[in-house]
Amino acid sequence: MTIRVLHVGLGPIGCAVARQVTARKGFRIVGAVDIDPHLGGRDVGVIADIGRPLRIKVTADLRKTVKATKPDIAVLCTSSSLKEVMPQLEELLELRVPVISTTEELAYPAMHNRRLAKHIDELARKAKVAVLGTGVNPGFMMDALPIALTAACEHVNRVEVRRVQDARSRRLAFQQKIGAGLTKEQFDRQVATGQVRHVGFTESIQMIADALGWTLTRITDDVRPWIAEEDVESELLAVDSGYVCGISQEGVGYIGDEVKIRLQLDAYLGARESYDSVLIDGSPRIYSKVHGGIHGDVATASITVNAIPLVINAPPGLRTMRDMPLPSFFGAR
Amino acid sequence: MTIRVLHVGLGPIGCAVARQVTARKGFRIVGAVDIDPHLGGRDVGVIADIGRPLRIKVTADLRKTVKATKPDIAVLCTSSSLKEVMPQLEELLELRVPVISTTEELAYPAMHNRRLAKHIDELARKAKVAVLGTGVNPGFMMDALPIALTAACEHVNRVEVRRVQDARSRRLAFQQKIGAGLTKEQFDRQVATGQVRHVGFTESIQMIADALGWTLTRITDDVRPWIAEEDVESELLAVDSGYVCGISQEGVGYIGDEVKIRLQLDAYLGARESYDSVLIDGSPRIYSKVHGGIHGDVATASITVNAIPLVINAPPGLRTMRDMPLPSFFGAR
Repeated sequence: MTIRVLHVGLGPIGCAVARQVTARKGFRIVGAVDIDPHLGGRDVGVIADIGRPLRIKVTADLRKTVKATKPDIAVLCTSSSLKEVMPQLEELLELRVPVISTTEELAYPAMHNRRLAKHIDELARKAKVAVLGTGVNPGFMMDALPIALTAACEHVNRVEVRRVQDARSRRLAFQQKIGAGLTKEQFDRQVATGQVRHVGFTESIQMIADALGWTLTRITDDVRPWIAEEDVESELLAVDSGYVCGISQEGVGYIGDEVKIRLQLDAYLGARESYDSVLIDGSPRIYSKVHGGIHGDVATASITVNAIPLVINAPPGLRTMRDMPLPSFFGAR
Repeated sequence: MTIRVLHVGLGPIGCAVARQVTARKGFRIVGAVDIDPHLGGRDVGVIADIGRPLRIKVTADLRKTVKATKPDIAVLCTSSSLKEVMPQLEELLELRVPVISTTEELAYPAMHNRRLAKHIDELARKAKVAVLGTGVNPGFMMDALPIALTAACEHVNRVEVRRVQDARSRRLAFQQKIGAGLTKEQFDRQVATGQVRHVGFTESIQMIADALGWTLTRITDDVRPWIAEEDVESELLAVDSGYVCGISQEGVGYIGDEVKIRLQLDAYLGARESYDSVLIDGSPRIYSKVHGGIHGDVATASITVNAIPLVINAPPGLRTMRDMPLPSFFGAR
């Protein structure tokens, strides 16, 4: 049985998902929607750099495209913000289409989004389909994976996750997103307006806390710049010493004054070692490290594609990576 | 709501589970059964070294104890062999008790156990309860965890898992189980009779293959001795140079001549570094390492206790760690 996939949003992540969907067995792209007028009418194969036309043209009309293409799943990659994707989610659920999305705030309903999450859950149950927000982070490296590791513990005091990434090998948009090349003042302004920030720490922290049965009293999420100590350059960008070369973001979940969960993301040009580590401070103490780290864009697209069959088979409602069956690679040729 | 736990089997693992069940919030031991006449009539708290009597006496009569105690779950820790636990499983399912078990061969139905597994699945569905085999290995480190890591991949060529354990810190029964102190000839005889062997490689290999959609053509499972190159001793055992100090077991899953899955367990007195590593040879390539490794006995008991609520809430039938929701620590005080 071939899974009929509708793409909603063909930015870098949407395109990466489309490439994988095309390359894997068991899937077929049947439609694509994007509000960008530059994309309208163009072939998905060309936009997503698939190397051949797919004879699927991008449209701007979600409703019409769903009705014409009858997708088994919609892949929603338009925004990090739950509020921003709400109209698209509502429309898809009204049309009874299961949804998988890389919207970071959908990965787990954080406190400030509880009302929206409840609304989505109700719509999904009514439509008898599942909705899942996923990706490598949030969705895996800083929540699902550390949560799974705690299964080996008889008690857990604290969970610490650290991702260190040398951003030189990442795409330009990512290098810009982490503020590379800005002055400290420009960086601080972009942090204030929310332009420079990884979205999802609050969601990951909440997911871990709920899994472990912890009632947190406070969650913090702070962004600081990495300042280049010497000139550093990627193939795409050069940063002089004294300028910002990346981001250091720390999210902490407290019970009272006690740090129970600490997530740290250091993404900057010139990091000496890339890795993703998890420390479960408990019994037994578990220190796990992915040497070299996991490439964010590829992994987010991979997890999204791999979770599609899980979403199609999941019970109706807003699901999370916590209550899904074990994810795994899907689509061997 | 307190989960009422019935223990079936109070060997080292059964006792470790009983200790955790007692220490955690949300559980109560309501009964215990063991066929060992030395244990009959004695208090579980004393046998499991809990430090206080639990006023629960070990009985030899499973049926009577189930009827008297009305457990929500049975924890079955009696044997590695599926065939050997069948009578106990059949009785528990006839009495409609959900079962979680550390029986290695129950962790995943391997080819030679397919008929028994189908029978258990039918009984469980009829009883409207779930049955799960789990533990750290099989059940987690060499199957569920590597499977979960493949979720970040767009394709997977090969999966390699390696556990290296310095057995000096393990219990005497474990040190003996891996053949420490034997001559090479004694070791080979014990391998031939199945006394020296980790049970579960075939199960883990099959679980990974099924998760990835691979049809293996052959599975091998070979045991070799580690010979001490110099005198080595633990607190419990001394092994002279030239004698066996542990085990090196390798399981391989092939498609044709191609190695697709390789599991290697090296457990011996004097291993310089203990670790559990996973290599996903794919895109991206993922190399993950748990430094120091995860202590087998504690982790097996932990995973068993942590999975109890999942089993109680699972759909009826024979379940595996592959189709359960994400496991996590359960029972925070």
